[in-house]
Amino acid sequence: MAFRLTPHERGFYPLFTRAAENIVVAADELAKLVAAEPGARPEIARRVKDAENAGDELTHEIMVKLNKVFVTPFDREDIYRLASSLDDVCDAIEEAADRIVLYRLGPLPPGVDAQVDVLQRAAARTVLAMPGLEKMAQLQEYWIDVNSLENEADEIYHRVLAGILSPAEPITDPAAVLEAIKLKEVVDTLEEAADAFETVANTVESIAVKEA
Amino acid sequence: MAFRLTPHERGFYPLFTRAAENIVVAADELAKLVAAEPGARPEIARRVKDAENAGDELTHEIMVKLNKVFVTPFDREDIYRLASSLDDVCDAIEEAADRIVLYRLGPLPPGVDAQVDVLQRAAARTVLAMPGLEKMAQLQEYWIDVNSLENEADEIYHRVLAGILSPAEPITDPAAVLEAIKLKEVVDTLEEAADAFETVANTVESIAVKEA
Amino acid sequence: MAFRLTPHERGFYPLFTRAAENIVVAADELAKLVAAEPGARPEIARRVKDAENAGDELTHEIMVKLNKVFVTPFDREDIYRLASSLDDVCDAIEEAADRIVLYRLGPLPPGVDAQVDVLQRAAARTVLAMPGLEKMAQLQEYWIDVNSLENEADEIYHRVLAGILSPAEPITDPAAVLEAIKLKEVVDTLEEAADAFETVANTVESIAVKEA
Repeated sequence: MAFRLTPHERGFYPLFTRAAENIVVAADELAKLVAAEPGARPEIARRVKDAENAGDELTHEIMVKLNKVFVTPFDREDIYRLASSLDDVCDAIEEAADRIVLYRLGPLPPGVDAQVDVLQRAAARTVLAMPGLEKMAQLQEYWIDVNSLENEADEIYHRVLAGILSPAEPITDPAAVLEAIKLKEVVDTLEEAADAFETVANTVESIAVKEA
Repeated sequence: MAFRLTPHERGFYPLFTRAAENIVVAADELAKLVAAEPGARPEIARRVKDAENAGDELTHEIMVKLNKVFVTPFDREDIYRLASSLDDVCDAIEEAADRIVLYRLGPLPPGVDAQVDVLQRAAARTVLAMPGLEKMAQLQEYWIDVNSLENEADEIYHRVLAGILSPAEPITDPAAVLEAIKLKEVVDTLEEAADAFETVANTVESIAVKEA
Repeated sequence: MAFRLTPHERGFYPLFTRAAENIVVAADELAKLVAAEPGARPEIARRVKDAENAGDELTHEIMVKLNKVFVTPFDREDIYRLASSLDDVCDAIEEAADRIVLYRLGPLPPGVDAQVDVLQRAAARTVLAMPGLEKMAQLQEYWIDVNSLENEADEIYHRVLAGILSPAEPITDPAAVLEAIKLKEVVDTLEEAADAFETVANTVESIAVKEA
């Protein structure tokens, strides 16, 4: 059955695209932060925070619209979940940036940049997919790509974590133990961001199946 | 226990108010625990646990009512989310109290009392707001207030965490590293409680927009 | 893969039973892993991972069915929550196994085996309960049993955690601090698995009340 959507109801689609574009901004700034000298990090972290704030406003805009319109292009719960999961990605990226600065971390271990690189690619892939929601096109490919990126992220995460917690040279210095714990939390948060992209893709898949 | 002879669907409102009042009790006991000598903590923690149990029963009562009544004052999902988010606040407060005792922590660092003070104010503000659900009155003010309290909590949390993990005097003792990790988990849990108040307020806002 | 020609709406019940049976497999493998010599752990962890993958496929099958059928035996949201919560149990069990291997942990402290034993009993109890969903029979007993198992798990968890973080002999070695932090995360994850069983039971209770 085909419903004609009024402009009001169609207003959800560009908001989802904008939320995904905003995640690209956040992920790109995070990549700069991870590549920067420690002294340059706080300023870059503020730009990640700006992106997170912009994301919060977009989520809020979607929620307000969701609560106001009578007819929605797909299930209210799906819109709610999609907006929430996009917001969760942005929150995790911002939290990782925030922790790197707050913990006054030194040089980051190899592999953190690879974790962030996967996040950038997942963000770009998500932007590409959002217009497909309107046409219900090519969503299956998107879901497969994000799952493959999540597997890649998972492998990198395991390797980085093993390097931090079980290094070849045993840790003998209390300060190094504390540094390891701080680093662990940053890489955990980056892994959460990768998982959050998968939740976005799962939600999109759920919508696609329902509409098929 | 006396039940009011109101129509079924109105029965939700007093339950939400009671759940919020119960959070005030939990937060007030937590404030006493944080101010007490370590030796006095276990007994106070038991009273926080009692409040959490009372909260569990209220949540259960709301869920049973939700599943039994045919007409609800607002969306079932919103009632579910509001009850769950009030429960999450109580759980986080109890977990913080539990950890302080379980980890046999020594004196708590400055700022933990300020974190708990924000929780007490957020709890009091939430109690005030609950009757507004029935009249759909002054909910916007509540939402703004809780968001402002959450920002305050966030700033305190960052300051306390930096003090614990990156103190002016570098940590050189293994036992001090372990103590820092334990403290970090307590202040993380207090921050989760502050975030959970924001989720309550967001749910209320979502209901208010829908009913407007 | 062959599909049985049962009415659509009945197809959910065997999937829930299979998801619960799969959790039994995962929990049993985890018990073997916890009892094994460190050198034998990676191979057993791979079998836990296999069970988690099988669980993911079952969850996916339930979600696809949920989105395709028009009539469901109970609320769509309840089916979604039940499938998600069964999946969360399996994820937590797999994460615990993964961490034990990834962190290259030495001998596990007493009590970890008791935590896993509770998980095995909760899994077996959950399998028994699933057919009751169709007949709406004996679900209250299941809910009471799982809550009692969760209380047992909670007591063991507190005892194990206190032993790890506040041992009789103070920790004086940096490497021992790091080992304690790693162990803490494993027992935290086992406690999450126990909590996840309670969420499954709460969801079942919520369905039972609604259908009563």
